[in-house]
Amino acid sequence: MQIAVLLYDRFTALDAVGVYELLARLPGADTVFVAKEPGPVRNDQGSLALVADKALADVPRPDIVVVPGGPGSRTAMYDPEILDWLRAADATSTWTTSVCTGSLVLAGAGLLGGRRATCHWLALDDLTAFGAEPTGERVVFDGKYVTAAGVSSGIDMALHLLGRVAGDATAQTIQLLAEYDPQPPYDAGSPEKAPAEIVAHWRGRAERVLVQES
Amino acid sequence: MQIAVLLYDRFTALDAVGVYELLARLPGADTVFVAKEPGPVRNDQGSLALVADKALADVPRPDIVVVPGGPGSRTAMYDPEILDWLRAADATSTWTTSVCTGSLVLAGAGLLGGRRATCHWLALDDLTAFGAEPTGERVVFDGKYVTAAGVSSGIDMALHLLGRVAGDATAQTIQLLAEYDPQPPYDAGSPEKAPAEIVAHWRGRAERVLVQES
Repeated sequence: MQIAVLLYDRFTALDAVGVYELLARLPGADTVFVAKEPGPVRNDQGSLALVADKALADVPRPDIVVVPGGPGSRTAMYDPEILDWLRAADATSTWTTSVCTGSLVLAGAGLLGGRRATCHWLALDDLTAFGAEPTGERVVFDGKYVTAAGVSSGIDMALHLLGRVAGDATAQTIQLLAEYDPQPPYDAGSPEKAPAEIVAHWRGRAERVLVQES
Repeated sequence: MQIAVLLYDRFTALDAVGVYELLARLPGADTVFVAKEPGPVRNDQGSLALVADKALADVPRPDIVVVPGGPGSRTAMYDPEILDWLRAADATSTWTTSVCTGSLVLAGAGLLGGRRATCHWLALDDLTAFGAEPTGERVVFDGKYVTAAGVSSGIDMALHLLGRVAGDATAQTIQLLAEYDPQPPYDAGSPEKAPAEIVAHWRGRAERVLVQES
């Protein structure tokens, strides 16, 4: 089973690596990072580059497509080369997935029309312009389309997918080996739970957070 | 404040990227990935390379040192070039930290003698050979030494560190923007919680999991 993780300039590293770390441990998986050109792709913070080992054209028919989010999604979602690849890959994929604002790239490719989907909480409403139905859930399945909320939610998405593809025991094994037993010292990971003044501040700066920079 | 994230062959990607994604959003942070030589460093799964932008020698005095784990830690923990750099960096660091079996590299450098520390659950006892006192906690502070348990625990460590360095509101903000509101579909992330037969199986294969490959 081939898994392709898309990279583009100014993606968010944990969006890609969270889901990758667990999902790629699926027995028999052949995972490849892809981009328009092979080589290093720089993230939103600017301090990390991940290497795309293959160009999009080299990976035409992955079984699982993973699209991370990040400020660069606002460019990627209108990039014809990326959108053409996504549409072609989706035509034969078993699962087409995204993390964070990666769902906007899927939406830009026309893949989420009429579907339930999610996104980073600050960008959730942007899905409606593409005919998708945003939900506040952390991981959303609609047929073969699986979207996850912001950044770290890709880890949860990976476990859901592992369970569907390989069964509960495999998913639990991979959770155990990744020691994914979250114990955050704060309970501020969603707009419903974080201090109201912090949420309000960032809602007012959504454009800056999600488009211009990290 | 300079943050240096160490890379070495066959590190585990989420060990490095989980803590990086949150910690590097510390206001004013200057984060750099370092390795013996600049350039791509391949992970344990073989399907991902992260780019080290600087050589160890270029980053002699980081304020925060982050050492990820992975099967390659069993080589790194005896590599004189890495250990010399770690000892020198530690001499002036504000925080010296690790994720997963990265604590074995700190231990190999002689930095954890007599200290409370943690590690991936399958390798926890290996700390004792270096005079450290293993604990089963997810994140352990002992003075300026901060160690986290397996793989995904670096995210929790980052939040603890952000709170100490920049205060609760900054940590909560970064948690919210990373939407770190974990909702794993299974409760199998620690040996106490996972199905007993899975835990027993992997305890019998610890050498293979932690040393030979991912």
